[in-house]
Amino acid sequence: MNVEGKPTRTISVGRDGVEIIDQTALPHAFVVRPLRALADVAHAIASMQVRGAPLIGATAAYGIWLAMRADPSDAALADARARLLATRPTAVNLRWALDVVAARLAPLPPDARAAAARAAADAIADEDVAINRAIGRHALPLIRDAAARRGRPPGEPIQVLTHCNAGWLATVDWGTALAGVYAAHDAGVPVHIWVDETRPRSQGAALTAWELGAHGVPHTVIVDNAGGHLMQRGQVDVVLVGTDRTTAAGDVVNKIGTYLKALAARDCGVPFYVAAPSPSIDWTIEDAGAAADIPIEERSPDEVTTVAGATAAGDSARVRVVPAGSAARNPGFDVTPARLVTGIITERGVAPASREGLAALFPERAAAVRAAAAKGAP
Amino acid sequence: MNVEGKPTRTISVGRDGVEIIDQTALPHAFVVRPLRALADVAHAIASMQVRGAPLIGATAAYGIWLAMRADPSDAALADARARLLATRPTAVNLRWALDVVAARLAPLPPDARAAAARAAADAIADEDVAINRAIGRHALPLIRDAAARRGRPPGEPIQVLTHCNAGWLATVDWGTALAGVYAAHDAGVPVHIWVDETRPRSQGAALTAWELGAHGVPHTVIVDNAGGHLMQRGQVDVVLVGTDRTTAAGDVVNKIGTYLKALAARDCGVPFYVAAPSPSIDWTIEDAGAAADIPIEERSPDEVTTVAGATAAGDSARVRVVPAGSAARNPGFDVTPARLVTGIITERGVAPASREGLAALFPERAAAVRAAAAKGAP
Repeated sequence: MNVEGKPTRTISVGRDGVEIIDQTALPHAFVVRPLRALADVAHAIASMQVRGAPLIGATAAYGIWLAMRADPSDAALADARARLLATRPTAVNLRWALDVVAARLAPLPPDARAAAARAAADAIADEDVAINRAIGRHALPLIRDAAARRGRPPGEPIQVLTHCNAGWLATVDWGTALAGVYAAHDAGVPVHIWVDETRPRSQGAALTAWELGAHGVPHTVIVDNAGGHLMQRGQVDVVLVGTDRTTAAGDVVNKIGTYLKALAARDCGVPFYVAAPSPSIDWTIEDAGAAADIPIEERSPDEVTTVAGATAAGDSARVRVVPAGSAARNPGFDVTPARLVTGIITERGVAPASREGLAALFPERAAAVRAAAAKGAP
Repeated sequence: MNVEGKPTRTISVGRDGVEIIDQTALPHAFVVRPLRALADVAHAIASMQVRGAPLIGATAAYGIWLAMRADPSDAALADARARLLATRPTAVNLRWALDVVAARLAPLPPDARAAAARAAADAIADEDVAINRAIGRHALPLIRDAAARRGRPPGEPIQVLTHCNAGWLATVDWGTALAGVYAAHDAGVPVHIWVDETRPRSQGAALTAWELGAHGVPHTVIVDNAGGHLMQRGQVDVVLVGTDRTTAAGDVVNKIGTYLKALAARDCGVPFYVAAPSPSIDWTIEDAGAAADIPIEERSPDEVTTVAGATAAGDSARVRVVPAGSAARNPGFDVTPARLVTGIITERGVAPASREGLAALFPERAAAVRAAAAKGAP
């Protein structure tokens, strides 16, 4: 998408390695940061300079490339894979991308591995862009229909609510939940986005608002508490969110607070769609409700007790909002049960949030997992 | 409740007028501020140095006293009433307290008004304390029962979730939603409180956490997004919130975000109680669902785009969390429909959230409103 009118990706190959947009500096500064070695990549993922399940996957793949460039041995490959896998426990794309690259490199002689890793990472990045474009194409009619069904007159902006950042900053380009929004905007369909702030890290306020503004999409930031009220008063036509991991049964693991918005959407008759590129679907979890047992990443209480922003002078600063003696807890994700999800938008089309719905769109993946399970493989 | 071991009220009569705890300085500084004239009181309410429906009512009553001390004329009385009424549009207690005091003063000769206003304000403050103690008495068995019904073993802390600040800082003393929590704690019943941060003004993080800490009640601050997840995972036994205005039909106007927690409580089978002192019940709204049309205060977008806190050095500071070019909206309250409310805890006992339930506890008030309506009075 555009930054200052120039098409931009979140990650690209530069002169001396990989270049990323440092998302911890947004929205107050636009910083492109070089990653030259595996340690830089691991740090970039763990510190959330890059975040968003699809972008984490692509970045990790490039991390294997940088590691192989320095040392293409089996030991180095295993070490790189383990270090990258440990950076963020919830994102299924991370494991998926590492598995793809490692499987391609393992049979190769060491001196062929760096080039193969680079090619595999490029392919993962390009595939992400292609997937997201396709999601956008499938989402656009849903967005139009949702507004029409709620009686929004043609020409009046379609009202979309989103949580966290599932925009192009969460991917290589286009975004997942916002791919349809960009598709609509670029096609001249008027849209207005309600952007949940998304405490504790405020990715909505910091990232989603920034990227929508950079691309010229009208939007309004609200606190995480406000979405239910707007839905009650008829000011939201459709909710679109991303996912860190959606189970084969259609249960959706996404940023903490997603579940609350799904409940409000159901209560107010607002369609609630999840944009799920197939790499974010966990085919190994097939039982409805089993997502309730998925371990949820507990992040630092400091993210709750303090808030990062910019001072009036424009300097970045962090202020404490909780009394010094008070404890805090910080679960990073929650699970939205499939029963609250109107549909799951994938690159192959829109599926009902159910085992049958997802398996019908991706029969080969569902079958592969079942075959592996039948053989007793993990 | 206690501050540094010393029983403290949020408002009291001092040497030269009224003294309040300046709640905009909490949790980082404990500042007692004198209010010497009507303008000080209007400013204290509008700027939320005092907030919380019951405390607003008591403070406004003292505002009439200060106005009458300066000028006890009919014109000054009408002017004081109008200025105070304009400070916060949503709180029904504000109008109630002003009506009580104005009705008492109107028939009096001017030179008797200041003393009568002082007496009326003292009575409102003392009545608030008595009401809240009674609410606490009625809430305590509900809190115990909720934990027992969810299988929490005796001796293990009862897990309570609360939103915003409906503690003693929102009242003259004891609080509404937290009155039962203090009653439990003071009776040696172990409780632990999940405190919603409550953006945009962070009254949970700043005020509820502070007052619980000051009184020694164990608590943990969470972001507003986290409560649903905790309920899904069985970590909340009961939700207790306050209200700015509850209709005679049992619909609950409270801090923005309350509705989302009520939805999660319903979805997870967690009891959801609203502590409503009778002055916060609006007997004029009798139709179920009519609360959906109550005008909701829209506050400044600056509260969304910026966050106030303390720097590492301890100075108070405000940081911007939204890009400079992004709009924000800030509805202050939402409406939780009666169907999501397990019960309404009043000073006379616990009522089902319905017209019949509330009218059974307060037959004289419900009847008075109907009689007035039958006569065509407003």
